[in-house]
Amino acid sequence: MGKGAKNKSKKSKAATKAKALERAAVEAADLSGKAAKKAKKKKAKAKEARAAAEVEVASWSDLLRVEPGFALADIDPASTPGFDGGKKDAEQVMEDLQKRLADLQERLFAESKGGGRRSILLVVQGMDTSGKGGIMRHVVGAVDPQGVDITSFKAPSAEEKKHPFLWRIRKALPRPGQIGVFDRSHYEDVLIVRVHELVPRSTWSRRYAQINRFEQGVVEDGTVIVKVMLHLSSDEQKARLTERLHRGDKYWKYNPGDVDERGYWADYMEAYQAALEKCSTAVAPWHVVPCDHKWYARLAVTNLLLEQLEAMDPRWPAADFDVEAERERLAMTP
Amino acid sequence: MGKGAKNKSKKSKAATKAKALERAAVEAADLSGKAAKKAKKKKAKAKEARAAAEVEVASWSDLLRVEPGFALADIDPASTPGFDGGKKDAEQVMEDLQKRLADLQERLFAESKGGGRRSILLVVQGMDTSGKGGIMRHVVGAVDPQGVDITSFKAPSAEEKKHPFLWRIRKALPRPGQIGVFDRSHYEDVLIVRVHELVPRSTWSRRYAQINRFEQGVVEDGTVIVKVMLHLSSDEQKARLTERLHRGDKYWKYNPGDVDERGYWADYMEAYQAALEKCSTAVAPWHVVPCDHKWYARLAVTNLLLEQLEAMDPRWPAADFDVEAERERLAMTP
Repeated sequence: MGKGAKNKSKKSKAATKAKALERAAVEAADLSGKAAKKAKKKKAKAKEARAAAEVEVASWSDLLRVEPGFALADIDPASTPGFDGGKKDAEQVMEDLQKRLADLQERLFAESKGGGRRSILLVVQGMDTSGKGGIMRHVVGAVDPQGVDITSFKAPSAEEKKHPFLWRIRKALPRPGQIGVFDRSHYEDVLIVRVHELVPRSTWSRRYAQINRFEQGVVEDGTVIVKVMLHLSSDEQKARLTERLHRGDKYWKYNPGDVDERGYWADYMEAYQAALEKCSTAVAPWHVVPCDHKWYARLAVTNLLLEQLEAMDPRWPAADFDVEAERERLAMTP
Repeated sequence: MGKGAKNKSKKSKAATKAKALERAAVEAADLSGKAAKKAKKKKAKAKEARAAAEVEVASWSDLLRVEPGFALADIDPASTPGFDGGKKDAEQVMEDLQKRLADLQERLFAESKGGGRRSILLVVQGMDTSGKGGIMRHVVGAVDPQGVDITSFKAPSAEEKKHPFLWRIRKALPRPGQIGVFDRSHYEDVLIVRVHELVPRSTWSRRYAQINRFEQGVVEDGTVIVKVMLHLSSDEQKARLTERLHRGDKYWKYNPGDVDERGYWADYMEAYQAALEKCSTAVAPWHVVPCDHKWYARLAVTNLLLEQLEAMDPRWPAADFDVEAERERLAMTP
């Protein structure tokens, strides 16, 4: 899993500093007016330090990317690589990340209005209850909805079945300036399809190479692809399904088929392993995001998106009109 | 403009109370620890009181709805009907409203998963720079993006021009469970089209009745329609366009055609007046939202949506499976 280890000491040091600063801030918080102000400052500093601790560690892509020799079974779904803090800490960090994400999204959108052709595509895969919906709400939901295009892929319709499996995918690719999001994707055609043998082996086994060629073309057309597998443990899935069966406001999310699918858990993990290792290419790598802690998954996916958008560095387009002349023309109107 | 006046005294009293409480809170805020805690409580109370002041006034729809005898010219674009506070106050109130909106949206979405057919459609019209984009970001952006479907209507394409003007509108109607949003709409076909005589008078003059029949059908199919005209003053538009010409990060939003359109301001107001009075029907009334203050427009549109969703009162669907049996089956899995 990349450079995680070698940055560990750097991260821990910064995190320790952050925690000490925060502890001091909390202790100070009970004091009188002046002291409280000071404490507030300290707390802000602690926040900064913590943010630094989490973000400086390494590239999140380096940390979570699927590289040759990768084994899904080696990754603990309850781990939180790149982050020492807990839920509250993550939420604190998230606020700033979401603002940056919203800002970069607007720039990408603006760039396209100036003729730019670039876009970004977030592909989210994961077992039932892995939190795909939460990623949509809390990560994707942080940016202007006008700049986002979410497609949820269900079992293919009769019409879709008449076409090659990538047909409906191609139609859903993001337009220039957009953040496209796939909630499930063409990877279902080598996951559920493989597990339940919905097509012959000879057919699905050819798809890995087809997918790689397809994604290569998409990238060449100016779309940055961020692929994320939300990695859930079977125990946590059981807990989440159980919750759905004990809350009247969650019944609608429950499907009896979900229990049947648990019988194929090992087959799914095998199919994921194959998809991840065969389709983590240089132009469109896979990332595995442990998601037994939902807050961690949201933090990690936000950072993965943010890194790519920062690397794209979209710019406000220059004026394609004479600014001075327009100012004068406007001033002349009543 | 409805019941605004008769609720005025009720509102003012509550607002005054809220302000007094808040002032006390601010004064107390400089004191020592214990007092600060007390002040916090008072501030929370002030917040509650203020929220009550704003929301209890009347139905926002009653306040802003276009009724027989309505005249657009009578409405001050800088007014803030139903709200005595300022920007900060509105932002404070908005947080709670957005949470309620997000909750109701989830229920509406859930309802459709249980077979419900209802949906809601927000139609937003307004002159350039009236803040339609801000409504998308700050009002629509507050709910789960999976439950929202925004369509921005531009000048019709060659393909669209081959069809009747409602063809592309029909295709963009929200599916069950969704909040559909039209950024501009079929009303452009009696606004810009009328102002610039893009079709003969005999054609556009028939469209008001066609629109009313169309909307009647949409409502009968289970979609609640909320129509909003963002009402901007010409002066404020000038100020906003001027700002776009003085900020490099805003050039992309500027179009030289916007200045030309200012020459037709009176014609647009006349076309709006006609559309508002002819198409504010019992099943799909128009609302005029003054928008010289962006924060007010966002507050008002949020409340208009919220009221309709509260009246729809979507419910979590009942389980369509045997809950006990499923719990047992799930418990048996490893």
